[in-house]
Order: sequence, then structure tokens, then C-alpha cells
Amino acid sequence: MAWSKSLAKLFSPLGRVAKDTSTAELLSTHGFVSQAGSGIYDLLPLGLKIQHNIEGIVRRHLNACGSNELALGSQVNPAIWRRSGRLEDPPSPELQFTENRKHLLNPTGEEQITTLVGNVSYRQLPLSFYQITRKYRNELRPRGGLLRTREFLMQDLYTFDETREGAYTAYANVQEAYHGIFKEIGVPYVVVEAENGTMGGDLSHEFHFLAEQGEDHILHCKSCGNNDQVEKVGVLDSCRKCGGELSTVNGIEVGHTFYLGTRYSQPLQASVTHSDGTSSPLEMGCYGIGVSRLISAIAEVSRDEHGLCWPRSVAAAQVCVVSKDLSLAAELSDQLARAGIDSVYDDRTPQLGYALRVAREMGWPYVLVAGRNYEKTGELELQDRQTGEVVKTTRESFIDLLVHKVLS
Amino acid sequence: MAWSKSLAKLFSPLGRVAKDTSTAELLSTHGFVSQAGSGIYDLLPLGLKIQHNIEGIVRRHLNACGSNELALGSQVNPAIWRRSGRLEDPPSPELQFTENRKHLLNPTGEEQITTLVGNVSYRQLPLSFYQITRKYRNELRPRGGLLRTREFLMQDLYTFDETREGAYTAYANVQEAYHGIFKEIGVPYVVVEAENGTMGGDLSHEFHFLAEQGEDHILHCKSCGNNDQVEKVGVLDSCRKCGGELSTVNGIEVGHTFYLGTRYSQPLQASVTHSDGTSSPLEMGCYGIGVSRLISAIAEVSRDEHGLCWPRSVAAAQVCVVSKDLSLAAELSDQLARAGIDSVYDDRTPQLGYALRVAREMGWPYVLVAGRNYEKTGELELQDRQTGEVVKTTRESFIDLLVHKVLS
Repeated sequence: MAWSKSLAKLFSPLGRVAKDTSTAELLSTHGFVSQAGSGIYDLLPLGLKIQHNIEGIVRRHLNACGSNELALGSQVNPAIWRRSGRLEDPPSPELQFTENRKHLLNPTGEEQITTLVGNVSYRQLPLSFYQITRKYRNELRPRGGLLRTREFLMQDLYTFDETREGAYTAYANVQEAYHGIFKEIGVPYVVVEAENGTMGGDLSHEFHFLAEQGEDHILHCKSCGNNDQVEKVGVLDSCRKCGGELSTVNGIEVGHTFYLGTRYSQPLQASVTHSDGTSSPLEMGCYGIGVSRLISAIAEVSRDEHGLCWPRSVAAAQVCVVSKDLSLAAELSDQLARAGIDSVYDDRTPQLGYALRVAREMGWPYVLVAGRNYEKTGELELQDRQTGEVVKTTRESFIDLLVHKVLS
Repeated sequence: MAWSKSLAKLFSPLGRVAKDTSTAELLSTHGFVSQAGSGIYDLLPLGLKIQHNIEGIVRRHLNACGSNELALGSQVNPAIWRRSGRLEDPPSPELQFTENRKHLLNPTGEEQITTLVGNVSYRQLPLSFYQITRKYRNELRPRGGLLRTREFLMQDLYTFDETREGAYTAYANVQEAYHGIFKEIGVPYVVVEAENGTMGGDLSHEFHFLAEQGEDHILHCKSCGNNDQVEKVGVLDSCRKCGGELSTVNGIEVGHTFYLGTRYSQPLQASVTHSDGTSSPLEMGCYGIGVSRLISAIAEVSRDEHGLCWPRSVAAAQVCVVSKDLSLAAELSDQLARAGIDSVYDDRTPQLGYALRVAREMGWPYVLVAGRNYEKTGELELQDRQTGEVVKTTRESFIDLLVHKVLS
């Protein structure tokens, strides 16, 4: 499809990618995102398409595990943060977006959802809700493109159960959904036991992509595969589970799960009435995935020395069509659209070599080239960005080839 | 599908709907929305589903007219509002969400998008971008549920052209897309010539639903069908176009289109370089639809004395299954899901009469009833909420009947 047409017009690609070109720079130069201020990013159409793809994966797995999507307001009454004990005076850095202290911009939704659910009967449980909305932090050190920003898209999920056992079952259920999400995204990840920190509760795991640029330090056991956060366990000589040899790796946090217990339900008086008429505070869990952060995290982990290299799961389009003849490119792109495959073509330049280099830098999973041989022999070339494999094909068979590769 | 299961648990329906029950009250009582503060609403799963359906309609028509979706940051550098002349000191009520005046929460995006586009070549034009994001107003008189709130979901679209003629063509193009959107929603609407007000430019139209509760006063000509805003033309004795008889009706504004000209491009120095090497400020248009407002507006206009009555275009599900036997309800609902039809069933009560009343109040387009006759004769009843028509059907044929009605 031709959304490339108006997009491509606005952004000029880099010269050849230098080895030290940052991923953030690649994302900006190729028109995925645009920095509007310190820690504030506009998501341009290509970046937003990737974000929508990530949202789609998240929604599918969370709906399948029985959670229901809603959207809480982004302005919070500070009274409920005062009741939970998270409103300091002066407010903590996360909370400084205020209008005479009458409203906060929410950095996270535990207080809101707990207030919304309130007092329920055991018959109404279990409950599980999630949202995918903008969250706000007064981030003092924005960095890494979308990795650390003042506002970001986050998926936050909250479970409500009658008993601790119920909450643990919910925890296992959402953990499984999170594994499904990260497996479908297709970037290698590890799960690490983590600190609950200011969230409360006593059970917590983080999902990490392993990357040199990651800010978290993880102890990985080469024997049993256990992962621990240095922050949680300190520097160890050997694995605390099996005694095996440890290596230290860096991680980018992309998801976090917490068993909260009654940390919020107790002060906010959200309780369950049991079948015997007595009542107790609800047992809660909360679960988050950094959706916009994932755009940068996936880009960081997947890229190579040639540029970006998007996994097929989230790529803004599966195919980039390259031809000196733009009307041919449009035709091929239309044919792909009719077969259900999203593609783009670059109408900025008739230079084949330049267009090929840019397509590689932008990281489209497949590049379909109608090059010099096309006019003579009708030969098309299909390049696989990740493997570098090149397959020759024809006008008659490229659709079948791509349907087989992309949709199967 | 069973998203009703956990939802329905949380909300208790009204007693019988009184004639003066407000639409806002119906939306709250039946769990579509929940008020979190003055002018702040949480969208609960049913309300969010309706909003997603509206978003889907908007996206389809705007993508088809060649516009590209992006997402601007919600925090704005006030410097660009100072340059456009819209940052007063003290800031206007819309802008009072500030952090030491370093950031504003955007009420609308003209300054941001104009800064983003900047200086371009005529070869890069025309450009058209839209977003569907939360906007903020420091609303002093929140009212009407989602009609007037402190934060809301809005679709805003911006076009950039080389010439005034180009901008007028873009205006006609987006107007056509807006007609497509409101026709697909299926609620009667009128288009009214409007004031440009603080937006600048000299061409502007509003899209209105006609409703007693509307805040805008519209002069409708019974002869030629022309509509004018009283606000723009004053009180007239007869139609200013044909001299025909006028009636005054109230409208709820749901969309607004503006030809902006160079109102923003001039002060923000966003220009086009022409083919002869000279340059001039970009010619712009902006276009908005109140997406979350539409939930309340559609509900208001479509409802009747029995309660809500959602048009099929946006309903949270097409069918509500009602049966005393909840496992039968679940089976019928699953069968519908396999045929591609969303349905819900109410598992709060085994009282058939009560469940039927609630289904009517909630406004599902169709109610499928396995009533007293079902066990004896296998007879199912299908009720059409809008027409009141009741059709008898069977376990063997209800899917075909609904596929015919809903998907055709």
C-alpha cells in the first residue's frame, strides 16, 4: 500500500550507517519517531504502525486469558494517592504534573482501579482488567529514544481475588499470557526474580531483553539457567539455586509482574464479602508491559551493523518494493495488498542502489527488487533482511512466494 | 463471547427506566462508563468497545482518503504556543495544566504538527496527517456524561498544501470522508456553516446531531435545507439563502472542519519552497471529531423511553443472549462467536423478565431469547431493539437468521 508515498516524502535517510549510529538516531532519521522535547516523542506513521502491532499482540493474549480492557482517566484525584500513602509532600518526582494539587497525571493506576472496584461479593470474583494508555513520569534523565521518556504507552493489568491462593493462580495465569506475548514478538527474553520496591507485595518478576545498552544487571547461571537481579541479590560468586557459574549480562526491562496482596485494597478499603458474611481486603496483582518502550527495545536488540531489522511480528510492513519504475512499484505493492500483505515503496529517488541501502537500514523484513534484469528477463529478487538470503522469482510467482513466507 | 461474564458481575442495573432518567445515568448504571471525578470518566469495557468501534470507522475513512495516522506527544513546549499567539499570560483556562510553565497538556495540535512539518519542498506536498488521542481542557462546567469533560478522545487531522486551491481541494476531500464516517455511524446529522473563532481562517463547517439536549442553536430552512448557526448569523426571520421558513433546532456538535490558511504556518515559519525557488507559508486545514463525545452523543440521540438503543455500527456487541439456563446461553453465544458475531449474556440473574428488561435498557441491537417455550418446542425468539419486531426461530436456524441480519 501507498502509505509510504506521503511518509517517505518527509524524511531523508542517513548516509551509510556508521557502527556507532545509535538506534534512537536510526529511528529518528528514518521517520519512525520525532523528538518534540526532552523525553517527549511524536510517533510518526511508521512508528505508530509498529506500536499498533505490539498493542494487537498484547490485546489478543490478555483477552484470551480472560482479562477485560478498559480505559481509566489520566487525571487522578490526589486524595486516593494520599490514602494509599504514595502522595508525599512535596510530591515525588512522578507526580509533579499538578494543577494546584487538585489533579495528578497518572504514572500508574493501582489507586484508581482499586477505588473503581470497591466492595464486591465473592460471587463477583475473580476480576481482571487491563488498559493500554499513556502514563506520565517527570523523568529527570530521558534517554535511549523511547526507552526512558516523560510520557509513554503502557499496558497495565490488575487482578482481584478472594484469597491469596486465588491471587497466585491469577499471577500464574497472567505470567503465561506474558510469555505468550514475548514469544509472539519473537525477541529473546529472560525472566528475573525482582524486588517489589515501592509497589508492595512479596512476589515479583521482570521480563528483560538482553542488550549491552540495558540499564539492569542480571546474574545468569550457565548451569540451571536461573536469572537474578544484582539489585535484588547483590553480587554473588555462584548461583544461589544450584551453585553453578554465573555471568553478568545487561537487560532492558520490558515487563513486570507483581503480587500485591492487600497493599492497596487495605488502605483504600476495597474488600470482598465472603460466603459466611465476613469480609476482608481484596487480594490483588498488577502487571505491566512498556508498549512504546518496546518499539525502541525491539529495535535495539534486533538491529545489526547495517541498520534496523524488525521482526516480522511487529514490522510496519512486511515488504518494501524497490524499482526505478515507480508505477511498477505501485503495481507490485497493490498486488501484494490484494493478497493481504502490507508493503511500502520508496518514491523519493530513482537510484536503485540508494533505495536498496535505505530499505536495508529501515529494516523491512523482505525487500522485493525489480532491478536491471527485470526488463530483459522479468526476473524479480526477494531479499530476506534477517538471513541475507536472496531468492529469484518472477512476476507470476512472487505473490505465492511471499504468501508462503509471510502469511504461513 | 463471555466478556459479559466478568463485566456484568460488577454493575447492578436500574429499576425500571423513568422517562427523565438521563442518558449519562443510563451509561453509568449499566457499566459503560464510570465517573472518577468532575469531568473525568473511566471508560469501562462496554464503553471502550463502543469507542474502539467508532475509532475503527474513523480510521477506515481517513486512511481511504489518503491521510496517515500518527501520535503527537501530549506535552507541548509552550514556546510554540507563544509563537502562534495562543499562549496568554496568565494562560487561558485550557492550558492550566503546567509544570512550572515548562509544559502544557495539549488541548489541540496545530502548533505541534506545524512545527513537525516545518519547511518542505512543493514535491513533498500535499501532506495529510491525523491522530486519535486524548486532549485536555480545563473545563469549568463539565456536563452530559462524555459530552463536556476535562479530558476526551479526539481525532484531529491536519492538511498541508502549496496553494489555497490545494487546501480547498483537501477541505472538500476531508469533508467527504467525514460524511462517510457519519453516514456509517448511522445517526442523522446536519452540516452547518460555522464561525472560525479562535482557529483563524475563513471557511468552517460543523457536523451536528440534532437533539433537544444540544447546546448549539441551529436555524434549519424547511425549503432549501440550509443550516446556519444562530451564533454565526444571529436570529433571522427567513432563510438567508432562499428566503424560506426557518425552524430553530438544537444540535450536539460532533465534528468540525476548518480551512486555516496560513494562520499557523506564518508565525511558526512552516513554508513551502515552490518550483521557481521562492517560498511561502504552507496552506493548512484542520479537522476534528469528538470520538469519546460521540459515545454520549450517539446514546443521547438513539435512546428511547425504554433505555439505550445502540446503532449496529457501534454497539459493544450485536446480540444479547437471554436464558434462564446459563450454560445454554454460553453455548448459543459460542455458536454466534464461531459465525463471527459478537454477543453477550447476562449471568447475574436467573429471572427471565428482569434479564429481558435489562437487555432492552442496555440497548443491544438484537436479543436472542430461549424462553419458556424453548424446552418444550425448541423455539427461540429474536427481538429487534430498534423496531420492536420479534421473529421466532430455532436452534437450527438462528445462526443463519442473525448472519443474514447482522453481517449482510
